[in-house]
Amino acid sequence: MIVVMRKGTTPEEVQRVMDRLREYGFAVHLSEGVERTVIGAIGDKKPERVQQIEAMDGVDKIVHILHPFKLAGREFKPEPSTVPVGSVTVGGQTLTVIAGPCAVESEEQILTVAKAVRDAGATMLRGGAFKPRTSPYSFQGLAEEGLKLLALARERTGLPVVTEVMQPGDVDLVSGYADVLQIGARNMQNFPLLREVGRTRKPVLLKRGLAATIEEWLMAAEYVISAGNPNVILCERGIRTFETATRNTLDLNAVPVVKQLSHLPIIVDPSHGTGKWSYVIPMARAAVAAGADGLIVEVHPNPEEAASDGAQSLKPEKFRELMREVGAIAAVLGRQLAPAVA
Amino acid sequence: MIVVMRKGTTPEEVQRVMDRLREYGFAVHLSEGVERTVIGAIGDKKPERVQQIEAMDGVDKIVHILHPFKLAGREFKPEPSTVPVGSVTVGGQTLTVIAGPCAVESEEQILTVAKAVRDAGATMLRGGAFKPRTSPYSFQGLAEEGLKLLALARERTGLPVVTEVMQPGDVDLVSGYADVLQIGARNMQNFPLLREVGRTRKPVLLKRGLAATIEEWLMAAEYVISAGNPNVILCERGIRTFETATRNTLDLNAVPVVKQLSHLPIIVDPSHGTGKWSYVIPMARAAVAAGADGLIVEVHPNPEEAASDGAQSLKPEKFRELMREVGAIAAVLGRQLAPAVA
Amino acid sequence: MIVVMRKGTTPEEVQRVMDRLREYGFAVHLSEGVERTVIGAIGDKKPERVQQIEAMDGVDKIVHILHPFKLAGREFKPEPSTVPVGSVTVGGQTLTVIAGPCAVESEEQILTVAKAVRDAGATMLRGGAFKPRTSPYSFQGLAEEGLKLLALARERTGLPVVTEVMQPGDVDLVSGYADVLQIGARNMQNFPLLREVGRTRKPVLLKRGLAATIEEWLMAAEYVISAGNPNVILCERGIRTFETATRNTLDLNAVPVVKQLSHLPIIVDPSHGTGKWSYVIPMARAAVAAGADGLIVEVHPNPEEAASDGAQSLKPEKFRELMREVGAIAAVLGRQLAPAVA
Amino acid sequence: MIVVMRKGTTPEEVQRVMDRLREYGFAVHLSEGVERTVIGAIGDKKPERVQQIEAMDGVDKIVHILHPFKLAGREFKPEPSTVPVGSVTVGGQTLTVIAGPCAVESEEQILTVAKAVRDAGATMLRGGAFKPRTSPYSFQGLAEEGLKLLALARERTGLPVVTEVMQPGDVDLVSGYADVLQIGARNMQNFPLLREVGRTRKPVLLKRGLAATIEEWLMAAEYVISAGNPNVILCERGIRTFETATRNTLDLNAVPVVKQLSHLPIIVDPSHGTGKWSYVIPMARAAVAAGADGLIVEVHPNPEEAASDGAQSLKPEKFRELMREVGAIAAVLGRQLAPAVA
Repeated sequence: MIVVMRKGTTPEEVQRVMDRLREYGFAVHLSEGVERTVIGAIGDKKPERVQQIEAMDGVDKIVHILHPFKLAGREFKPEPSTVPVGSVTVGGQTLTVIAGPCAVESEEQILTVAKAVRDAGATMLRGGAFKPRTSPYSFQGLAEEGLKLLALARERTGLPVVTEVMQPGDVDLVSGYADVLQIGARNMQNFPLLREVGRTRKPVLLKRGLAATIEEWLMAAEYVISAGNPNVILCERGIRTFETATRNTLDLNAVPVVKQLSHLPIIVDPSHGTGKWSYVIPMARAAVAAGADGLIVEVHPNPEEAASDGAQSLKPEKFRELMREVGAIAAVLGRQLAPAVA
Repeated sequence: MIVVMRKGTTPEEVQRVMDRLREYGFAVHLSEGVERTVIGAIGDKKPERVQQIEAMDGVDKIVHILHPFKLAGREFKPEPSTVPVGSVTVGGQTLTVIAGPCAVESEEQILTVAKAVRDAGATMLRGGAFKPRTSPYSFQGLAEEGLKLLALARERTGLPVVTEVMQPGDVDLVSGYADVLQIGARNMQNFPLLREVGRTRKPVLLKRGLAATIEEWLMAAEYVISAGNPNVILCERGIRTFETATRNTLDLNAVPVVKQLSHLPIIVDPSHGTGKWSYVIPMARAAVAAGADGLIVEVHPNPEEAASDGAQSLKPEKFRELMREVGAIAAVLGRQLAPAVA
Repeated sequence: MIVVMRKGTTPEEVQRVMDRLREYGFAVHLSEGVERTVIGAIGDKKPERVQQIEAMDGVDKIVHILHPFKLAGREFKPEPSTVPVGSVTVGGQTLTVIAGPCAVESEEQILTVAKAVRDAGATMLRGGAFKPRTSPYSFQGLAEEGLKLLALARERTGLPVVTEVMQPGDVDLVSGYADVLQIGARNMQNFPLLREVGRTRKPVLLKRGLAATIEEWLMAAEYVISAGNPNVILCERGIRTFETATRNTLDLNAVPVVKQLSHLPIIVDPSHGTGKWSYVIPMARAAVAAGADGLIVEVHPNPEEAASDGAQSLKPEKFRELMREVGAIAAVLGRQLAPAVA
Repeated sequence: MIVVMRKGTTPEEVQRVMDRLREYGFAVHLSEGVERTVIGAIGDKKPERVQQIEAMDGVDKIVHILHPFKLAGREFKPEPSTVPVGSVTVGGQTLTVIAGPCAVESEEQILTVAKAVRDAGATMLRGGAFKPRTSPYSFQGLAEEGLKLLALARERTGLPVVTEVMQPGDVDLVSGYADVLQIGARNMQNFPLLREVGRTRKPVLLKRGLAATIEEWLMAAEYVISAGNPNVILCERGIRTFETATRNTLDLNAVPVVKQLSHLPIIVDPSHGTGKWSYVIPMARAAVAAGADGLIVEVHPNPEEAASDGAQSLKPEKFRELMREVGAIAAVLGRQLAPAVA
């Protein structure tokens, strides 16, 4: 890192900072410009050490040279990672499409959607049993009953199941039913939850927070990996900006950025990212063209009776259209849709 | 709410929407303009009903007339609320100042700070025992040992103690030591945690999320209140914008907006809001001038040895300066600093 | 529009608002809910009338039902527009690729790039003669000398020329050389400039402002069209968000949103949108997959000697790779690259 | 500046970058860490040189140590600047309050407001003759007729006049009538306009752009100063964020940040910053408490008949209340309102 001293700092202040850096185990290089003195510090950077240096007299700011993530970074592991989910592999040359309703509502609903998306070529089934909702008065999900229905749908269709876990105390319960544990956007920095899913070996679908930089998102992945679970799949789902024409601003730039910084697979959620079903197909095509490893899409047999997120759900026939179109784009990039479940 | 139909919608589509609204218990008014048909719907608005209507054929969008919060709203309770914390009252004509280190580090550190801020006139002591940190490699707090040290500092100084709780499973533990339970910005929409603190009667300091609208923040308060705990204190601590000169953008506009929409007291955190100690005093003055009910400020006897957030911590002498200046501003507005703890 | 009255408003206040609306020529509908009174107002909405109503006693807020743009809107003209530029047509089934250096630097430079991009299949040549630069100490462009070099490059390659005009007083000068007048992002709401290019018939490439909503962008197009020039091409080039991994956040969601709201063609600038050449090709693919009518891309024969924006410029061989890849994606969507210039 | 090389860069690449830096006149320091090589470069940094270095093979990124502004910076001129406007001085120990209507509408309107704000103690009169409006169909101002009415109001009240100039070609015209030339937020990076007002000696009120960082804002001031006009007054007027409860997010943090970085005076516009008259007084108090050198406030005798911005205008009696309250806050900080105009 680089320690930039204030203009007019005294030699004693510079010396104290250099001494402190050496005490913390850094090798230091002094560079005195006409206007500013900067100190290069090489060594293992503990976050609290950095803040202590930053608080010293005469220090203007600290400039970081290296990214703070390690295990999630491409410098640690240059080859792209793949994450196995049952017989499916996320990442590599395969395009993974996860589809299903926002929330599990009933046996009939989840079985209908599961079959529809399986028949259209989806690779996994999504569906919420525990639902984070802005309002305490909204439908909060069927809880364990929902998990059981997801397991039933898996049994009937062969599709692995992705569902959200909202608190550390539920990780064991949800792991008992799910194939992939989803961490929602609002929980991206719920650190006790990240550590808890890190203690399992279940694949984790880690959604980007609404105000999270890509670096913070990779640090959230670092929590999971450093706790022992390397099976992290990132999911871009839109960030919050001033634009109100879409519910969120789906940030597809994150796809090439993540591919450059990290070895982890990344998929994209155009349903939450845009909030409107009519934008889902074009943005799904764009995500695949940008190099995403997959998609997660909301599909409902009857959006106008959905218990949540009807406005952004595709009807099954629209989902089949999506599958055809993204399949064609994937082929251009030398990727294949995962083979249909037997 | 207002249901706006698309241009060129058919009379049948309009009829179906009106029938559905009536079925859901709304009274409806049809208004046919030259370019658009809009339907006014009066009644109790369940969130899932709204989304179902929004997903119907012919519907362009739903426009909300009323705010979604109830118990947190000023229409529900026109008089400002106050929250009692031991012998202190937050809200009303009193200005509450909470001060202390970012994290509890040692007995000596917390006792030194506690006495210093008490002597300068602070009303409560803050200090983290469980610390949410962006990096898994950062100091994560002393946990229960930190809580015990906070209790010791309270015993020695008489100051009530504010500290963060990060997960539902810790609420009982933290409640055993703390006078106020802090919900951090990253947990503002950690709904299981909100419900759990809502089951206690402990005062809750609810920080605004980095990407949370004021409406969402009040909905988070609604979670706590609707679970049975009316003792919510809001805390503005900066939102995330494109500006990088400050760590966050402290949004003081939230003070008059909250005062207009809600009866809950609101305090301001200029330390996290700006991220730099030299901006803390002017923004503390501004917060009080905007009408805030109090402040929460980071103070450390030796910021350059702080285990976290040294760069934004005030030294005790600077904190005394802050107290003098905000006291003078409060007096102009007819407010008093809470009387010194005996 | 809908006028929402405050809770507790008096019948007299409601009456005054209704009278005023009628006086302004609106038809009004009163709807009295349990908690709020709302007044529907149908008629031609003059912006200043709306603000006057909003300022009346008892009025809480105005809710707009219709978009404010007319001539730029799809309701005004349901069929997609195309914009002719010499023998090229922007929009429709053709994919337009505009390429060239950030700034015109010398005869050799612009001729080299022009030939390289023409040979790779580009449809038009871009290059700045007047450069808006954040710093007054940066290279500001060759001015008229640059325009002459662009005209020379057009003569040698047959490529139509796109270049920026920065002030009303330069519109005639630039129109004398350019085939398309570019309005830069920082000038999207430079209204005198918009009106001035609206008085010509030259095609206008209108970049989206860094903080502009899509609605405001279409209102800027409305300025040009209402002044008499229907030949507007929109250009998404990234918005400003909290994310710093990319220079801007290229907002591809704007592509399907614009296609739904407007008949105007829209192209995408992945060079400014991301700020880093290694992200340009994936985001160019994504833009085409999202349905964009074209691209504008920075290409420089020797980025490390470019007078500006070297870090985001593609070398000619990378540009050829881009052309191959976007051509393949376009084909999937049933679009063709414009035929090579003879 | 610091040049950070990519991981795995070759010694030849490092050498080429160092050679190039020396060729451009920089003194260089090489620092080879375990993971990265960084090169410190000391010297005069031309913006285009930086971009060329950034585009070289092996370069990961450039880190800037110094701010890019010079003449606007406190390192160039450590003492705060004051700007004389007739007999008034902006900056220093005086609090300047500029007040008046959004737009000049008629002789009666502007004279009524001018007298009202003068009698309440305002220091200058504001009023728009050329109005930048989002819609081409909105009232665009009275143009020169409006300027004449402002001059008449000055004659009658003695108040200096602040009004906006929108294009370079109007600078002479507006300078003939106005005492302060206002550059609107949407024109903050209208560089030809900045240069043109820089060629006069008229005081310039430079509003911050909606998406402008503080650094870019100071660079806009640098354009004016470097063209020869040192009389720049900065004006914070709100930035664009995701929050919709206020029209913009008034960023009061900018006050202490600007005070630290620059010697220029800074005033605050709580009317545009919040967009709602009921938030104007608390935010005006907060601005003064944060250390602002003044305020600019919209006042209209009859907001519900204003040609623009009625919803954010104060009635004269509310403005008198504002003057009383900010005067009391200013006194706490040792500042005085400018003496009343004779």
